[in-house]
Amino acid sequence: MRHYLDHAATTPLRPEAREAWLAASETVGNASSTHGAGQDARRLLEESRERVAAVVDADPIEIVFTSGGTESINLALQGLWHARPPGSSAIVLPDGEHHATMDTVAALVDEGAELRRVLVTAEARIDPGKFAALLPGAALATALAANNEAGTINDARALAAAAAVSHVPLHLDAVAALGHVPLSFRSLRGEAADGVGLVAMSLAGHKIGAPVGVGALVTARSARVTALLRGGAQQRGLRAGTQDIAGAAAFAVALELAENEREGEAARLRLLRDRLVSGIRGVVPAAELLGDPVGRLPGNAHLLFPGAVGESLLFLLDVAGVAASTGSACQAGVAEPSHVVIAMGRSERDARSVLRFSLGRTSTDADVDAVLGAIAEAYARASGAGTAARS
Amino acid sequence: MRHYLDHAATTPLRPEAREAWLAASETVGNASSTHGAGQDARRLLEESRERVAAVVDADPIEIVFTSGGTESINLALQGLWHARPPGSSAIVLPDGEHHATMDTVAALVDEGAELRRVLVTAEARIDPGKFAALLPGAALATALAANNEAGTINDARALAAAAAVSHVPLHLDAVAALGHVPLSFRSLRGEAADGVGLVAMSLAGHKIGAPVGVGALVTARSARVTALLRGGAQQRGLRAGTQDIAGAAAFAVALELAENEREGEAARLRLLRDRLVSGIRGVVPAAELLGDPVGRLPGNAHLLFPGAVGESLLFLLDVAGVAASTGSACQAGVAEPSHVVIAMGRSERDARSVLRFSLGRTSTDADVDAVLGAIAEAYARASGAGTAARS
Repeated sequence: MRHYLDHAATTPLRPEAREAWLAASETVGNASSTHGAGQDARRLLEESRERVAAVVDADPIEIVFTSGGTESINLALQGLWHARPPGSSAIVLPDGEHHATMDTVAALVDEGAELRRVLVTAEARIDPGKFAALLPGAALATALAANNEAGTINDARALAAAAAVSHVPLHLDAVAALGHVPLSFRSLRGEAADGVGLVAMSLAGHKIGAPVGVGALVTARSARVTALLRGGAQQRGLRAGTQDIAGAAAFAVALELAENEREGEAARLRLLRDRLVSGIRGVVPAAELLGDPVGRLPGNAHLLFPGAVGESLLFLLDVAGVAASTGSACQAGVAEPSHVVIAMGRSERDARSVLRFSLGRTSTDADVDAVLGAIAEAYARASGAGTAARS
Repeated sequence: MRHYLDHAATTPLRPEAREAWLAASETVGNASSTHGAGQDARRLLEESRERVAAVVDADPIEIVFTSGGTESINLALQGLWHARPPGSSAIVLPDGEHHATMDTVAALVDEGAELRRVLVTAEARIDPGKFAALLPGAALATALAANNEAGTINDARALAAAAAVSHVPLHLDAVAALGHVPLSFRSLRGEAADGVGLVAMSLAGHKIGAPVGVGALVTARSARVTALLRGGAQQRGLRAGTQDIAGAAAFAVALELAENEREGEAARLRLLRDRLVSGIRGVVPAAELLGDPVGRLPGNAHLLFPGAVGESLLFLLDVAGVAASTGSACQAGVAEPSHVVIAMGRSERDARSVLRFSLGRTSTDADVDAVLGAIAEAYARASGAGTAARS
C-alpha cells in the first residue's frame, strides 16, 4: 500500500472537481463565440470566475485564469517588469522563493534588471523590515505567502503594506498557501494606490485538489501588467487563448471545498503532522524540524536528517511505500541541494539531508504510522552510521 | 435543436479523450517527483508524448506539451526571436495569420524586430516564391499550414524548403490543419541544417476533440528557442510547470483517432461541405465562396454574403439554431472586419459580410439542412434588400 505524503508537489483530484470538469466538458462552444453555444460556455466560465473571486475576496474581473502556478508567476513578474515605469529597474527578491520566481527573475536580470536580494531568517521567513528597506525605487517586488519547502508562513499583510507605502507593485506567490492560509486579496491590498502595493497573487489548482493545468493570477484592476501569451482580448487582454471552461469549473469547485474545510482540516493536519514530527524524533533523535515550529503550513514537516543523503532516504522510504520529497528541484534527474535550506543559513551538506513530508486531504494516521515504521531503518542505512553498522 | 457548424472555433470533446482524461486523472503524483507515484505519472506522460510524436512523425523529445495553440505560437515566436543570432532582426510574416501570431509579432516589433510582410493571394494562400524572396537574412519566419478562416491549405513543404535553403528558422502554425491535413514534421523538416528550416510546429488539442487547455509545440532538437514559462527543467527546459498528465493522455488519444479517421472524414466532410455551399448558392445566388474551391480544409465553407452584415447573419442563424462564425475576432464583444478577408484583397465592407461554416466529426446532413432552411430569410433580413422588401 502506498502512503502519499507529498501533497505539496501535487494533490489527488477531488471527486467533486472531477465531476465539475466532466459536466463542463459536455459544453460545446468557445467562450469567445457570439452564438448561443459560445454564450453558454461563457456563462459557465464567468460563473467559475465569480466563485473563485468570492473565495479569495477579489472582483471577478481581477481573476485571470492561467494554465497553473508557473504561468501565473511568469505572467506577474514578466508582465510587471515589462510595464514598469521608466527609471526603475530593481527587483526585490527574497532568498528561498520558488524556482518559477527565481528563474524568471534571473531572465529579467539578463534583460537588465538590478537584483535586490532579501536575506530570510533561519526559519526561511521574510523579515518585513528587511524587505521594506529594499523597496524604495524598485520596479517590482515578489514574495511567497508561505514557503513551499520549509512551510513557513510569511506576514503577507506586512509585506503588502510595505509595498504600498513605498509605492512598489508586489506579486504574492500564494501557490503553497492557498487552501491552508486565509487569503483576502482585497484586504491584503488595503488602501494601496493604483498599481502599487499588492497587485498580483498567483494561485494553482492542483495544489488544492483541482486538475493540473489550471490556475489563476489575481490581478488588481489598476495593475500595470503586459500580457505574456498574446493573441486576443480574452481576460482583459492579459491572457489570450481559448479559455478552459472545464478546468475553471473544476478549480472553482475545489477552491470552495478547500476554503470550507480549511479550518477543520488545518486542525486535523496539525495534529497528524505534530505526531509525525514527534514520532520521527522519537526514533531518530538526531532529526531536526526546520522552519518555524508554529507559524507554518499545517501539513508541512520539513526535517533535517544529519549525515543522511535526502535522495537515499527518499528511495528507501519509497521502497517502504512512502512518498515524500527532498523539496529540491530534481526535475532534470539531478538532485540539487535545496536552495531554501541554504537560504536558511545551513550548509550545502545539510541542504542535501532534508526531507519534506506534506500532508493533505487524504492523509490519515496510517500514513503517519507508515513513516514511523520505516524511518529509523532508512536513516540508519542512509547515514554514515548506518553504513558503518552494517559493514 | 442546435446545429453546431463552428468546429474551427472548438470541437466537442471525444468520448475516448474524456475517458483517457478520467483514467489519467486518477494518477496521483507529480511527474517531476522521484518516488514511485511520480514515476508512474512520468511513465504515463512519456507514453502520451510518444503517441503524439508518432502521429506527427517527430521524436518524442521534440514534443513540448503546452496549454494550447496560443501558448505554442507564443513560445515559438518569442522563443525563436530571443534566441536569434546577432545581426538578424527581421521577421517574415504573411498577411492573414492567426491573431496569436500577429499580436506576438507586433510585440516583437515593439522590441525592435523589423517586419517583412508577405502578401497573400486572393485565395489567402502564401505564395512560396514571394515568401522565399523575403527570407534571406531574416531572424525567423512563420506561416499557417492552413488558414483558419479561409480554409486555404498552404504548401508547407515548399515554405519549409525555402526556409531551409535561406537558413532561416520557420515556425509552422498547424493548429487549423491538424487532423485534416497530413503533417510529418520529419518529412517537412527534410535535410535542413541545424536550427533552420522547419524548427517548430504548433498544435492545439481542442480543435481535434481533445480538451481545451492542452497543446504542443513540436520543437526540433536543434532549434534555438528560449523558454517562455520559466521555473524548471521540465521538457528540455523549454516549458516549466507541473505537467498535465491527464491533458496529455487525452490529447494523444484524440490525435490518434483524428489521424485514423482523417481520410475517411475528409471525404465525408467534403461532400457535406460541398452540398452546403451549393445549397446556399442555390437559395442565395449572390453568395460567393472565398478561398481556393479545392485546396482547402474539407470542413471549411467561407462565404461572402454581399451587402449583409456578418454579425446580423450570425445572430439570425443562431435564432434558427445554427452556430457559425464571422471568422473575425470578436473576443472583446466588438465585431472587427476580418483581417483575412482584407488580406485577400477585399474591401472592409466585404470583410464584414462573411460567414465561416466549419464542419467536423459530429456534423451531419441535418446540420446542412438547418443552414439551408434558414439562410435565405436570414440573408434577406440582414441585407439591404431584405430590409427594403420588408419595409
